[in-house]
Amino acid sequence: MLSEFDLIKRYFAQHSIQDSRVALGIGDDCALLNPSAGMQMAISSDMLVSGHHFFPDADPYKLGHKCLAVNLSDLAAMGAEPLGFTLALSLPEANPDWLAAFSRGLLTLANEYGCHLIGGDTTKGPLNICITIFGELPPGTALRRDAAKIGDDIWVSGTLGDARLALANYWKEVTLTETDHELAATRMHQPSPRIALGAALRGIAHAALDISDGLAGDLGHILEKSAVGATIFIDRLPAGPVLQTQSPDLRRQFTLNGGDDYELCFTAPASRRQDVLAAAAKANTAITHIGQIVAETGLRLLDERGQAVSLQYKSFDHFAHP
Amino acid sequence: MLSEFDLIKRYFAQHSIQDSRVALGIGDDCALLNPSAGMQMAISSDMLVSGHHFFPDADPYKLGHKCLAVNLSDLAAMGAEPLGFTLALSLPEANPDWLAAFSRGLLTLANEYGCHLIGGDTTKGPLNICITIFGELPPGTALRRDAAKIGDDIWVSGTLGDARLALANYWKEVTLTETDHELAATRMHQPSPRIALGAALRGIAHAALDISDGLAGDLGHILEKSAVGATIFIDRLPAGPVLQTQSPDLRRQFTLNGGDDYELCFTAPASRRQDVLAAAAKANTAITHIGQIVAETGLRLLDERGQAVSLQYKSFDHFAHP
Repeated sequence: MLSEFDLIKRYFAQHSIQDSRVALGIGDDCALLNPSAGMQMAISSDMLVSGHHFFPDADPYKLGHKCLAVNLSDLAAMGAEPLGFTLALSLPEANPDWLAAFSRGLLTLANEYGCHLIGGDTTKGPLNICITIFGELPPGTALRRDAAKIGDDIWVSGTLGDARLALANYWKEVTLTETDHELAATRMHQPSPRIALGAALRGIAHAALDISDGLAGDLGHILEKSAVGATIFIDRLPAGPVLQTQSPDLRRQFTLNGGDDYELCFTAPASRRQDVLAAAAKANTAITHIGQIVAETGLRLLDERGQAVSLQYKSFDHFAHP
Repeated sequence: MLSEFDLIKRYFAQHSIQDSRVALGIGDDCALLNPSAGMQMAISSDMLVSGHHFFPDADPYKLGHKCLAVNLSDLAAMGAEPLGFTLALSLPEANPDWLAAFSRGLLTLANEYGCHLIGGDTTKGPLNICITIFGELPPGTALRRDAAKIGDDIWVSGTLGDARLALANYWKEVTLTETDHELAATRMHQPSPRIALGAALRGIAHAALDISDGLAGDLGHILEKSAVGATIFIDRLPAGPVLQTQSPDLRRQFTLNGGDDYELCFTAPASRRQDVLAAAAKANTAITHIGQIVAETGLRLLDERGQAVSLQYKSFDHFAHP
């Protein structure tokens, strides 16, 4: 069996990192970074646990991708650009096939975004993957949750609900064809972090976050932190291509309460609609205007005729689910 | 049961952080740091798993202390001074008593070192605690593993082996009195990170690391990275107060191969012995000169008469133990 040190070396130690901001990578007590002069550092940690965030038999390549993607998504939601990350990994055993595939999935995405693996930890234990990611952005430009203003447009990137639909098929809540399932499952397993969009929205958008636990619940964090309310036109929520073929009711449920979407939800002044659309075009990312920030607190759902829709919405809570 | 958000708020959200380097703490997609101008950032992650790094019924207050202490120890080993940390926590259940005690142990130590909890994640799953810590130091002053020079003195801080002795008592390899066990176990549960010593050694010491897996194995990392060897006078290794009462053989074994010591092992030019001693006095930390860095690779153990001692030494490997 591979030792802890062999394992890090073989699968995770990258060739010398060509980035002057990384003074020292893997292999010492700490990594050393030289933050760019005058830049602010954005930091986020996510922990993914086998049997809770992914199936124990999950494809390790896709899992490697997803673990980093959800962290990149947190940087995107602040408008930060990736610098590097640490990986802490608890493994039941050091399985070379699993590790080779996992590290390939992880490092392929890391290289795509110029996000360097600079350190971490490996240990024996139930499968658990914890990534802490570092990005940079100019001070004062972060897209914070507490920055929504009354009258702001509310926007969402990409499409919602297909990841939740794939989960529904696993759970046999719905029955998808194999082709549809594959398409939907790709959204669940390999989300695309919206780094380019987040960066393009700096100086234009007010508040932003990434949708991991469902639009309604996550938008609720913006509303709470900004002490405002929102009106959402529920049938404008952009359903994923597979969800579009399902019933209107399921479409509403899963676009609103899905989870694992990893799209950005952001607010911006109505006066800057053209700038928002130009930023999205620059980032080559579809966006949809779904509603408005209003003074009255709480979230109200409307149909296209402006009639109130009563639909349960709740955030995903890791302690309330099996 | 507490929701994920209640839980973070109640136990971990600190009052507003009085440190201009922390622009945004817990509660958004990312935390935001303003690194001090011209400083380098040191970063380390450690993952502690129930049943591997600590007993499942471990006292949560002590556990909170230890989890942060081992990370502070990594900063100390680079000569960095603490800035902040993220905490990712997987819990089988949201037990308020456990969380209250754990967070108190963690935050008491954090406050002692001015190390701010700036973000993290909580999720359901087998108990797993992952901390990523951030510190600062002037560029070019880090105490790196690859910096030992032939002729350097080798030093170790504090005492070694008592943590391993407490473990031996748990495992019934030895029998300690209750008083001795308590004393030794304190070393295992509540290590003192050597932050002041690490910082005082900047510009004086060459290489350093913290001893987590046993002196011999950890010193081996310095030797390998620096492409040098070492001679250690085994009976100069400073045994902990309880280990001092044990047999000479056990004393040698546990000072050399213990683990969980969290002392610093460092090298410094023989010409700077007075500066090293002054740095230790300034940091109010005992240190012991235990040997020399030599050209011939490998680690040689000598007794006080200069005779070779053959003693197995190996690093602790999380994949090789049950």
